Amino acid sequence: MPNATTLTLAQMLIARRSLTPDDDGCQNILANRLANTGFHNEHLRFGNVCNLWARRGNTAPLVCFAGHTDVVPTGPLAQWESDPFTPVVRDGKLYGRGAADMKTSLAAFITAIEAFIADHPDHKGSIALLITSDEEGPATEGTVKVVEMLKARGEAIDYCIVGEPTCTDVLGDTIKNGRRGSLSGNLTVKGIQGHIAYPHLASNPIHLVAPAIAELAQATWDTGNEYFPPTTWHISNINGGTGATNVIPGEVNLLFNFRFSTASTVESLKERVHAILDRHQLNYTLSWELSGKPYLTPKGDLADALSSAIREVTDVNATLSTSGGTSDGRFIADICPQLVEFGPCNATIHKLNEHVEVADIERLSDIYRLTLKNLLDRK
Amino acid sequence: MPNATTLTLAQMLIARRSLTPDDDGCQNILANRLANTGFHNEHLRFGNVCNLWARRGNTAPLVCFAGHTDVVPTGPLAQWESDPFTPVVRDGKLYGRGAADMKTSLAAFITAIEAFIADHPDHKGSIALLITSDEEGPATEGTVKVVEMLKARGEAIDYCIVGEPTCTDVLGDTIKNGRRGSLSGNLTVKGIQGHIAYPHLASNPIHLVAPAIAELAQATWDTGNEYFPPTTWHISNINGGTGATNVIPGEVNLLFNFRFSTASTVESLKERVHAILDRHQLNYTLSWELSGKPYLTPKGDLADALSSAIREVTDVNATLSTSGGTSDGRFIADICPQLVEFGPCNATIHKLNEHVEVADIERLSDIYRLTLKNLLDRK
Repeated sequence: MPNATTLTLAQMLIARRSLTPDDDGCQNILANRLANTGFHNEHLRFGNVCNLWARRGNTAPLVCFAGHTDVVPTGPLAQWESDPFTPVVRDGKLYGRGAADMKTSLAAFITAIEAFIADHPDHKGSIALLITSDEEGPATEGTVKVVEMLKARGEAIDYCIVGEPTCTDVLGDTIKNGRRGSLSGNLTVKGIQGHIAYPHLASNPIHLVAPAIAELAQATWDTGNEYFPPTTWHISNINGGTGATNVIPGEVNLLFNFRFSTASTVESLKERVHAILDRHQLNYTLSWELSGKPYLTPKGDLADALSSAIREVTDVNATLSTSGGTSDGRFIADICPQLVEFGPCNATIHKLNEHVEVADIERLSDIYRLTLKNLLDRK
Repeated sequence: MPNATTLTLAQMLIARRSLTPDDDGCQNILANRLANTGFHNEHLRFGNVCNLWARRGNTAPLVCFAGHTDVVPTGPLAQWESDPFTPVVRDGKLYGRGAADMKTSLAAFITAIEAFIADHPDHKGSIALLITSDEEGPATEGTVKVVEMLKARGEAIDYCIVGEPTCTDVLGDTIKNGRRGSLSGNLTVKGIQGHIAYPHLASNPIHLVAPAIAELAQATWDTGNEYFPPTTWHISNINGGTGATNVIPGEVNLLFNFRFSTASTVESLKERVHAILDRHQLNYTLSWELSGKPYLTPKGDLADALSSAIREVTDVNATLSTSGGTSDGRFIADICPQLVEFGPCNATIHKLNEHVEVADIERLSDIYRLTLKNLLDRK
């Protein structure tokens, strides 16, 4: 089959109703195109999640493109100007769920690889794709499992580009070269339940924890560093009380979360929280969950190759940023010393009427192609 | 019909399954006995609540006994040693739901009145009973409505004895001569909802309110007075959060309650809470509900008459106390300058295997009878 343009391929993918964790055939579309270009495809199913590990070549360095075929729910259909799973070009924009996050990036991966190989059939190194259908969901059966498999068989990635939508105003303005870590706590502070008319027989855990919350909320955890903003701590949920208005509750529960930079360690953050709770003499239980370690790719081969490609295509000098939520990059960084994220503008992701500029679609493919050239051309 | 003893009448009442707000015929039993003694009975039904206003005589002073026929639910039946609605005397105790709160008091009212009238047919003043079936529930269709009616027709009460179980260790040890007021607040503090990874775009209402809670919890509202302990402030419920662990919530809700003495006023407490919230520059809404004004009956005719009766029957010097939750006394105090509460020991009220000492039952009737004598005998 003749290679379709990036726009056409993006439209084919958007037409698939791949609500997380459903792949709805997207990975087969990618795999078929890759097979035609000499890739070896491994379809890896974990639970109800589809994953694809596709590789061409066996030598180093290995450049991997990573991403996901799943999309978030549409929200109220009536508020979409056109059906989210019927891709439509309107006023120079491609509309559809996943247009920006991240089916256009997937399409651009494919056409960039095809064009690069056509131009440089004797390039050095290898190229791979790591695709999951479980990035928007719990992310427990997707990239993390594929990485475990690769690690087990000693397959390392030298450079990885995750196609997440990273740009804010114009294509090329932002490369993510790291992400903060995410550390969550589930805290239950105990008091003594009792009738509100007899408070001397009770001990109010909400009153007891309030000064500790005030202190935690005002703490400076670190001041960040060259690449990261300062670590932040926030309570997402607080619940205490029996519902009855005449009862002092026996306990109060809080869920909180650190987004932390490489200027702090998991252990240092845990220790400081315990120290504050202990200083306030609270009777509590606290369980921790590390949902993502921070990672960082300082300036170097990969960031240079991508920045230079962006400048060549868009005339924009990309900013390196570590802001935002977690992504699957946190898992891949474990087996890959240089990892960045780069994709289209993210203003409409997860929203109604998600779209990308049509003019950015082929330019994105060009940026990925030139990045491959900068990394793998024998020159 | 020959008058039964107080014990027998208490058993007849306990056998009625008068779960709040159901009277289950209790008030008819009382009304029939009172009619035989020359009382004029008014059965007043508001909503699904039965009330009885029974009065004998038209002159002042009017001594009123007040109470309720409804009882709280039994809790797990299997954990009762005998059926809660089958009154049983065992080891010198009368068991059954309502034995202490407050069907024994109701029975003692009747036998005390009967005995007093038999001994003093030409007593001065008048005697009344104000009985509801809505004291243990919302208390909106009971005593408060009867008091409104009495107020509307200008019928004042000079002395009122509420039969609530007030004693702690032995019969006679405690008279309640006042109750604290109860003032509740429903506070919602607003922030700005946002993703926990972008806290600079959000404003966390839980963090904002914490220092204000700490200050409110530590405030000294007053130091009480001769009759009242200091006013207390407690949060009963706090809830904030979307359930999601990656979202800073847009608001947090708190329910709190003052139990306040006559050393503070409703307005002064409200003003001080607003001042603290405002000083912390919170964006909030706060609605107030005054569920009971405080009342106080200082030492005087009624307290003296009751204390003397208690001493004569039990040889105990009663303590005047204002502790504990609210009672229907808060409503009656509005039309009655001297109101006290006195009844049996309260150790088992609202609990499994509720009971009173059989030996206390006739003594309680004697105390009520002698109190009537002290107040209404022409001497």
